[in-house]
Amino acid sequence: MHDFTVTPYAVEGDVDYDRLLERFGADRLTDAQIADFPQPAHRLLRREVFYAGRDVDRFTAAATRDETVSVVTGRGPSGPMHLGHVYPFYFAKYLQEQTGAHVYIPLSDDEKYFAKDLTFDEIHEYTKENLRDILAVGFDPEKTRIIVDTEDADVVYPLAAEFAKELTPAAMEATYGTPPNVGLGFYPAVQATHLLLPQLVHGPHPTLVPIAVDQDPHVRVCRDIAAKQRHDVTKPAALLSKFLPRLGGGGGKMSTSDEAPGILLSDDRETVREKVAKHAYSGGRSDLDEHREHGGDPEVDVAYQLLFYFFEDDDAELERLADEYRSGELLSGELKEYAADRIADFLEAHQARRPEGPIAEVVDPYRLTDAERERLRPGVFG
Amino acid sequence: MHDFTVTPYAVEGDVDYDRLLERFGADRLTDAQIADFPQPAHRLLRREVFYAGRDVDRFTAAATRDETVSVVTGRGPSGPMHLGHVYPFYFAKYLQEQTGAHVYIPLSDDEKYFAKDLTFDEIHEYTKENLRDILAVGFDPEKTRIIVDTEDADVVYPLAAEFAKELTPAAMEATYGTPPNVGLGFYPAVQATHLLLPQLVHGPHPTLVPIAVDQDPHVRVCRDIAAKQRHDVTKPAALLSKFLPRLGGGGGKMSTSDEAPGILLSDDRETVREKVAKHAYSGGRSDLDEHREHGGDPEVDVAYQLLFYFFEDDDAELERLADEYRSGELLSGELKEYAADRIADFLEAHQARRPEGPIAEVVDPYRLTDAERERLRPGVFG
Repeated sequence: MHDFTVTPYAVEGDVDYDRLLERFGADRLTDAQIADFPQPAHRLLRREVFYAGRDVDRFTAAATRDETVSVVTGRGPSGPMHLGHVYPFYFAKYLQEQTGAHVYIPLSDDEKYFAKDLTFDEIHEYTKENLRDILAVGFDPEKTRIIVDTEDADVVYPLAAEFAKELTPAAMEATYGTPPNVGLGFYPAVQATHLLLPQLVHGPHPTLVPIAVDQDPHVRVCRDIAAKQRHDVTKPAALLSKFLPRLGGGGGKMSTSDEAPGILLSDDRETVREKVAKHAYSGGRSDLDEHREHGGDPEVDVAYQLLFYFFEDDDAELERLADEYRSGELLSGELKEYAADRIADFLEAHQARRPEGPIAEVVDPYRLTDAERERLRPGVFG
Repeated sequence: MHDFTVTPYAVEGDVDYDRLLERFGADRLTDAQIADFPQPAHRLLRREVFYAGRDVDRFTAAATRDETVSVVTGRGPSGPMHLGHVYPFYFAKYLQEQTGAHVYIPLSDDEKYFAKDLTFDEIHEYTKENLRDILAVGFDPEKTRIIVDTEDADVVYPLAAEFAKELTPAAMEATYGTPPNVGLGFYPAVQATHLLLPQLVHGPHPTLVPIAVDQDPHVRVCRDIAAKQRHDVTKPAALLSKFLPRLGGGGGKMSTSDEAPGILLSDDRETVREKVAKHAYSGGRSDLDEHREHGGDPEVDVAYQLLFYFFEDDDAELERLADEYRSGELLSGELKEYAADRIADFLEAHQARRPEGPIAEVVDPYRLTDAERERLRPGVFG
């Protein structure tokens, strides 16, 4: 039995996604729950990449009735974004298109400053680049709000202060361990603010938080705080995903700090082909004749898994690839080339949508309006 | 030997001000240091109410050379202000008049929310009233900045985040004990921000923090953080005061939560007279004839001590009162009446200067300007 560690700050070992749910106390999505999402269900749901949840039913029920719903999905801007960072945003965009959901996107520059050996200047350079990638997803500016913790501190800090009062150091450390500094100890209150912002702006309604399963503790802490502090909000729902496979294989999450490189959102076709060809763990046989005879295993083949997780929407095509791979007809190199091209197609389209121009201008339509800000701000000067 | 406790959150027992300096590692002011302040020295210095310090010489030297200096003195708005809260502000005003010092006045509504069983709404009502009392002191709006933590969170939180990274939970708890919530654990970083703000706005220069001695740990934590984090600021200096005597006597600090009532800044002459007559601990004899014969003890007489600490500026008059009291010529009731009238004179003048009108308007000339705010703010949106 492999052991594994999953916290918001470390994912190690081979992750057993079902044991993780037991540990975290979340539930695997049922077929009925997946069918409650707008149909046809997004491939991330169909293929159970988003595989578990907490209070998802209230969100889907409200969305079905065309009631107000929102989605919160954020980004910790501590480096360039790679493939594993972007799929929650495309999923949020699908929900926005299908349900009219408000999408709130917090960038936790404060958290990354507290947790990493980086200066604010460095983090803010990443923040600017990450914001261009997030905007490339194509959110509706009328329905989307981007929050940068330090730039929107006028609303974030007073609300975080409210929630911080409900979180004892002991409860915080039970979830996160002892933080390296008092900033990271305070941060869960900032995260709670992120998750409750849509309700604080638009009134109580179901909020869905689609996140990789390692971020679930944040949601649990927030749900506890929300229940204690505010009687005018409902607990945010969590939709939990598996980790996009690492190029080098294994169960942990894709990360730019792994040995095998991650595929960056800025990579060009040639780079993607090289990275996949060189680093993607193969489920094929090492000998060509043997592969032709016995076939490969798509279940452990990272090129196939990347297609399965996100980059091939066509279920029939995916099935064909798996069949041909298992039969030995499709070679590992061919499968890699196919996957690299689908990924590169995706990235080229994404890159073409990345906005240029001064970052303040391109983000402006997505920032909290003055009226929204007033609604959220404290009361001394009215 | 009496034992006593002094932390930023508790002052108990008979305070031994010299032992306290040993504990805190600060130095009693020398006559030469007092002579370095603008002359004639303020009675709070002459009479050693401000009795100790840390790095005071750099402040007085710069002030003497007409260089930039600043004073930071704040207020935790958890209730109405009483006499014990106001003397540091009048002292700051004296320094501003005499040296041209910038005066920065942070109102820590966040801290009080974290530390007290009060809502933000309650705290913000106190904040508004406290602000009127602070403005009644008569600061120069060109040289004075008022910061309300949650209202100025756009600058306070990003800076506090910077400093928070340098403060481990262990170091924080060594000074403050385990906080009741993660907000109060984060607060020392906010306090560090307060104390460094003048230098962050105006460039490096000596800053003096005149505070009651129980607040010294805040300054020490801030000095440590400043040294670690910023090489473009100098450590703030502390000027430490004794506690204004409680009406009921004893060595602790005057507080509205004591059994004997504090004198509020809003009290009228009749109320002051009643409180002093009824509650001020007397150094006189219980029997009139005995008093006439043996006299009273001004050292323990709270009416006399209030005059000595702040309310009688005239040294000769104060001496005359002490002499007459010791000789028995001046009765306890007469001394009380004299003290109550001096206090009421002070309060009536103070109250007459309290600004009326919408709080946002009256505070506006004292808030950070847009240019100052830009200088302090983080860098994502420029």
